[in-house]
Amino acid sequence: MGELSHFDDKGRAVMVDVGDKPETERVATASGTVQVAAETLKLIQDEGVAKGDVLSIAQLAGIMGAKRTADLIPLCHPLPISAVSVELSCDDDASTIRIEATVKTQGRTGVEMEALTAVSVAALTVYDMCKAVDRAMVLSDIRLEHKAGGRSGEFNRPS
Amino acid sequence: MGELSHFDDKGRAVMVDVGDKPETERVATASGTVQVAAETLKLIQDEGVAKGDVLSIAQLAGIMGAKRTADLIPLCHPLPISAVSVELSCDDDASTIRIEATVKTQGRTGVEMEALTAVSVAALTVYDMCKAVDRAMVLSDIRLEHKAGGRSGEFNRPS
Amino acid sequence: MGELSHFDDKGRAVMVDVGDKPETERVATASGTVQVAAETLKLIQDEGVAKGDVLSIAQLAGIMGAKRTADLIPLCHPLPISAVSVELSCDDDASTIRIEATVKTQGRTGVEMEALTAVSVAALTVYDMCKAVDRAMVLSDIRLEHKAGGRSGEFNRPS
Amino acid sequence: MGELSHFDDKGRAVMVDVGDKPETERVATASGTVQVAAETLKLIQDEGVAKGDVLSIAQLAGIMGAKRTADLIPLCHPLPISAVSVELSCDDDASTIRIEATVKTQGRTGVEMEALTAVSVAALTVYDMCKAVDRAMVLSDIRLEHKAGGRSGEFNRPS
Amino acid sequence: MGELSHFDDKGRAVMVDVGDKPETERVATASGTVQVAAETLKLIQDEGVAKGDVLSIAQLAGIMGAKRTADLIPLCHPLPISAVSVELSCDDDASTIRIEATVKTQGRTGVEMEALTAVSVAALTVYDMCKAVDRAMVLSDIRLEHKAGGRSGEFNRPS
Amino acid sequence: MGELSHFDDKGRAVMVDVGDKPETERVATASGTVQVAAETLKLIQDEGVAKGDVLSIAQLAGIMGAKRTADLIPLCHPLPISAVSVELSCDDDASTIRIEATVKTQGRTGVEMEALTAVSVAALTVYDMCKAVDRAMVLSDIRLEHKAGGRSGEFNRPS
Repeated sequence: MGELSHFDDKGRAVMVDVGDKPETERVATASGTVQVAAETLKLIQDEGVAKGDVLSIAQLAGIMGAKRTADLIPLCHPLPISAVSVELSCDDDASTIRIEATVKTQGRTGVEMEALTAVSVAALTVYDMCKAVDRAMVLSDIRLEHKAGGRSGEFNRPS
Repeated sequence: MGELSHFDDKGRAVMVDVGDKPETERVATASGTVQVAAETLKLIQDEGVAKGDVLSIAQLAGIMGAKRTADLIPLCHPLPISAVSVELSCDDDASTIRIEATVKTQGRTGVEMEALTAVSVAALTVYDMCKAVDRAMVLSDIRLEHKAGGRSGEFNRPS
Repeated sequence: MGELSHFDDKGRAVMVDVGDKPETERVATASGTVQVAAETLKLIQDEGVAKGDVLSIAQLAGIMGAKRTADLIPLCHPLPISAVSVELSCDDDASTIRIEATVKTQGRTGVEMEALTAVSVAALTVYDMCKAVDRAMVLSDIRLEHKAGGRSGEFNRPS
Repeated sequence: MGELSHFDDKGRAVMVDVGDKPETERVATASGTVQVAAETLKLIQDEGVAKGDVLSIAQLAGIMGAKRTADLIPLCHPLPISAVSVELSCDDDASTIRIEATVKTQGRTGVEMEALTAVSVAALTVYDMCKAVDRAMVLSDIRLEHKAGGRSGEFNRPS
Repeated sequence: MGELSHFDDKGRAVMVDVGDKPETERVATASGTVQVAAETLKLIQDEGVAKGDVLSIAQLAGIMGAKRTADLIPLCHPLPISAVSVELSCDDDASTIRIEATVKTQGRTGVEMEALTAVSVAALTVYDMCKAVDRAMVLSDIRLEHKAGGRSGEFNRPS
Repeated sequence: MGELSHFDDKGRAVMVDVGDKPETERVATASGTVQVAAETLKLIQDEGVAKGDVLSIAQLAGIMGAKRTADLIPLCHPLPISAVSVELSCDDDASTIRIEATVKTQGRTGVEMEALTAVSVAALTVYDMCKAVDRAMVLSDIRLEHKAGGRSGEFNRPS
């Protein structure tokens, strides 16, 4: 196992130098879930008929959240994101809302944090929209599923 | 079970009117974990000797993240936060980093979202700082532990 | 007719002192239109069946835009907004999308700028979502309809 | 007429993938007006002698607003803007302030939204600076005048 | 001499709890200088005749910077600023631009950081506007001149 | 001596066009000091044993501040920063904290402002963390030490 990046040789935090890396296509997919009460899930699905439904608001929040990643994560590089998609779906059996986000860039560093931030902000938004009826919801399993591009190569979560 | 707030009678998203609520003291505590490989946890603990350690950077990111909540969550009210504390600790047995955040305000609406956002941003920052050695980390169990103040009364997560 | 505020006695820009004003309930409603081609309007209405329709995305962008007003307008006071609603509707005869936003606060200064910013950002978002098919759209008639609360009293746009 | 971009094949909002587009020079010019009372226009012109005049503050706000476009418009790509100019002028006969903004980038997507946002923020700033004397001002005719560069080719507003 | 605030009893950074402090009027004045070459100062003064002069742009940047204080300074409380004024003047003898900023709030904590941030951002903006002709400029003597209001009482810089 | 950039031929502020400049590696180093009372310096050094010490928080704030430069400085170009490092050290003899920041980009314009902003935000953060015990601290000598890359060539501060 290697060493933590983001520290210089004196142990001080740094935004690591990516200036010598080539601009290549990079993609990352992250996922996560919001565990909700069965009644909350039903309410979300019923609202979905109306225009401003929970899932599409959370989806939009996730896309916008991806753009704020470098503002939120201290040592993240600002990146010209070239694509973001966020998808939310209901799993009745597990009583969860599943979130998946894919982010792309042509850049010098990867977009794992952007994908994970998109999922987190979408999940937080689901919580916000439903908290009046269900304060016990839990955000879980927010994790990287896949990344490609860049020096560290491809990552695929083992199933 | 009640109805989802954040929608008007035509099903359109709204930032709900809190103008008629009194300004009272409100507090919320949220928690969450980052599951890491045993070797990653060891690396984090070794780094902790140096100044710019992972946990204190994540802690600071969590505090700053709480202040960005209304920017990130579409229908959240901007709030004059009066206190934020974020605490991270290592659990060797479970191989997790545990995060807890408490936020207070004197305001017209609660700070659950601020506490949950603080935990999420701290967790994302741990991921960012350690991802060079461990891309399989998982953010889990991000949830409200306690809230008090306001019309909806107290909430304590059942243990 | 009075004098321009936002200037001191040497003609320098200032954020005017509102500290001596009482915190009172204030409300403002603004409106505006986006003129679109008849075919664009049809496309928007057809999309409306799907989840991520143009009007609900623009509506959410307007709500979020209201929260960014003090960031955008140099001499605007930051304000704890207590409510925002934004409504978009299609006018087939005029081939326009009509936007109306209402913002409330309990504060020391009015929310006209927040309401006008909400309308503008919603209108810009309609443009962004439809520009691939119609670059000739025009944002027009963005204006204050009504305000109440505060020292300057009530304003109602003469019809 | 084509289809609305910003939606995937399931009708969900996406930030469209521009990663396969080449980085080319792109330029866009937008314009708009603020209709003011004759006395307001006179006041603005008289203030113009002083340092902190309305038009130069609105001009600066427009330039800064262009940089916030991707923060405001949900599905806009963040872009490395390479130039922004904003110009305001008084039209005594029409009793309007006319605003024109030109934005350039070397990027993978156009800067129409940045130019339109610059005009809108400049216009909102004029409103803010003058609202103490004239709440009936109207922002109108905010529209794209010209764009060049990119796959969709040149656009010139028909006169 | 007391203890550093912003740390809890375990030495961890916190945003200190101000919820129990009363909302009172608070004011702070800060000042600073930019040392410039004599020729740069002359250039600035000559430009001052034109609309978009260096000093008024820096002044506006300072006012806007005050509003971003809580975004920039990790443990600062977000505050509803009620007034900001920033003043720049040229001192030919010392070959400096002198900056002074005063900020007011009705709040639970002071506005020293807002005043110091306003001065710093104004000074940085002077540097930015003049750097093409003078890269050796120095920002100096950025300091609190006066504060009043709040538990810690009044501060006046000893002359 | 040349002319001030950032103005067009009518004296209006512009974000100057850098679109015709090549993307080259650029680096800038800035420095500054915070003058503190001897007892404050001792307190900072004692705290440094604990995790959340003043210097590492200020260092992180400086790194994050560099990323906000284009938000703060009106006519600054947004830039894809590729590296930031900030270093703080105590000088017992001079009773100062010395700050140095280095920023790199592969871009069309330099990063002097980013380096100076990093130093300023780090210095402001030191002030914020220590102001409860020492309101007389002074931020001084914030200046460019070195820059390289780009059309205007290298700059080294004469010692």
